[in-house]
Amino acid sequence: MSQLPLKAYLESRREIVDMALDRVLPGEDAAPSTVHRAMRYSVLAGGKRLRPILVVASAEAVGGSAEQVMDTACALELIHTYSLIHDDLPAMDDDDYRRGRLTSHKVFGDAIAILAGDALLTLAFHLIAANAARGADPKVVCQVVAEVAEAAGTSGMVGGQVVDIESEGKAITADTLDYIHTRKTAALIRVSMRAGAMLAGARPAALARIGDAGQRLGLVFQIVDDILDVEGTLAELGKTAGSDERKKKVTYPAYHGIEASKRRARELIVEAKAALEPLGPAAEPLRALADYILERKN
Amino acid sequence: MSQLPLKAYLESRREIVDMALDRVLPGEDAAPSTVHRAMRYSVLAGGKRLRPILVVASAEAVGGSAEQVMDTACALELIHTYSLIHDDLPAMDDDDYRRGRLTSHKVFGDAIAILAGDALLTLAFHLIAANAARGADPKVVCQVVAEVAEAAGTSGMVGGQVVDIESEGKAITADTLDYIHTRKTAALIRVSMRAGAMLAGARPAALARIGDAGQRLGLVFQIVDDILDVEGTLAELGKTAGSDERKKKVTYPAYHGIEASKRRARELIVEAKAALEPLGPAAEPLRALADYILERKN
Repeated sequence: MSQLPLKAYLESRREIVDMALDRVLPGEDAAPSTVHRAMRYSVLAGGKRLRPILVVASAEAVGGSAEQVMDTACALELIHTYSLIHDDLPAMDDDDYRRGRLTSHKVFGDAIAILAGDALLTLAFHLIAANAARGADPKVVCQVVAEVAEAAGTSGMVGGQVVDIESEGKAITADTLDYIHTRKTAALIRVSMRAGAMLAGARPAALARIGDAGQRLGLVFQIVDDILDVEGTLAELGKTAGSDERKKKVTYPAYHGIEASKRRARELIVEAKAALEPLGPAAEPLRALADYILERKN
Repeated sequence: MSQLPLKAYLESRREIVDMALDRVLPGEDAAPSTVHRAMRYSVLAGGKRLRPILVVASAEAVGGSAEQVMDTACALELIHTYSLIHDDLPAMDDDDYRRGRLTSHKVFGDAIAILAGDALLTLAFHLIAANAARGADPKVVCQVVAEVAEAAGTSGMVGGQVVDIESEGKAITADTLDYIHTRKTAALIRVSMRAGAMLAGARPAALARIGDAGQRLGLVFQIVDDILDVEGTLAELGKTAGSDERKKKVTYPAYHGIEASKRRARELIVEAKAALEPLGPAAEPLRALADYILERKN
């Protein structure tokens, strides 16, 4: 898949994900409208939709369809968005901008921002579970709920965020840095890919390969995020550049240097694509996504 | 069931619930320990365990066992606790005491309190879903996840909290008061009872009766809570009495008067017990719990 088809693929998938997100989110007119407005404000702010697109591409890689995984794809984006809303709170990272607009608490106040995050996390599990009433195998759905919860909880995303906060301004080891990256970012990206594959009926060997690639793509995503925070601009990123350094966040380039970070990211992408190789042409979009995650500018 | 057997029933059930909660919560030694300590601090603070006991009693009312619903019972207590931690935050109700001890953010800070709440909500869905890998019917488990998520989300608990916050200090209608009570408290109590019954294989008619009774018990629970806030003491409640009035919260007694509130609570209990009547002797603990919810002093 050359550069142009990937761009078309990403755009078409992002479009169907955006439409689905608009459909699954409660309307602004429905009571209580404040929290529904806050949920829609943050989710429909136009992110890359990387996690839902990975859910879809992983389903397609093992012969499934976008349609059968769309609600679960949306759920992963809602969980990602909830984590951003809570991370941006004054009590946490205290960020004013996200995805190019004011953060939730700057617009709706801290209380509604906290509740909007809570509601998005809750709605995510509703969407995943309700899939069983629409024809998905309930046993697989239960496994997806359990795995997503694990990836989002204290052995995953929440755990990474806790250690991230606790490490600010401290000298840390390479192990701690890996701990944070693996949990804070890679866990959710990995489970996005596993969830898509599981719902599409992947055999155990294919599922293992997709999870393995997902872990690596997740790490690359975070390394590139850290590099962009050093090299990018507000206009490119939609959030304040240089914020990691200002907040004394531990980052991959701060620890290993920019060049070693870029090299490590490239290695991980080679490994991820090698893991996906035996899946054949159906996994072509997934392999193209691997390149995109490495080369993205925002 | 006379007063004494109920007391013994409550104590025995509270004991097995407390043991199960201790088992399902990550240990304080496991990394990241700060958030695990915060989770355990709030959950193991010794609440009434009403929601998990209602899960168990509802399962038993239709011939099920405590064991088969225990993880889901724990999940309902975790969701209840997460909502208390977030509600108590300075950005929300700003409470210093809960269950007779300092609130989570007073001990661990706002960031960890937010994350501990997030983690408890996430772990709750993990516990419900993982039940399918231990022999529960996956189709029923998916339905329980979906119903619990609905009861906890913007059409339930979060929605009630939003309208509660937005109504502080305002003149509101009886409809708004009912809206808040139905969603903020009754939804989770109702779904606790439905979840227990569903997992125990309740037939549709029995399930409808249990849900119907649950809705009424939930409303009584909130009305009695409001009355206790007027009439109780810190020692009895484990939280500051009179806080509703201080915070200009809308309450049932403030709107309808104490006597009318007590009358309404008694009526609802009569109706709840009537709904449970056809379930026979197996529902005796559930009916005794109805009296307990009406007569409790904390």
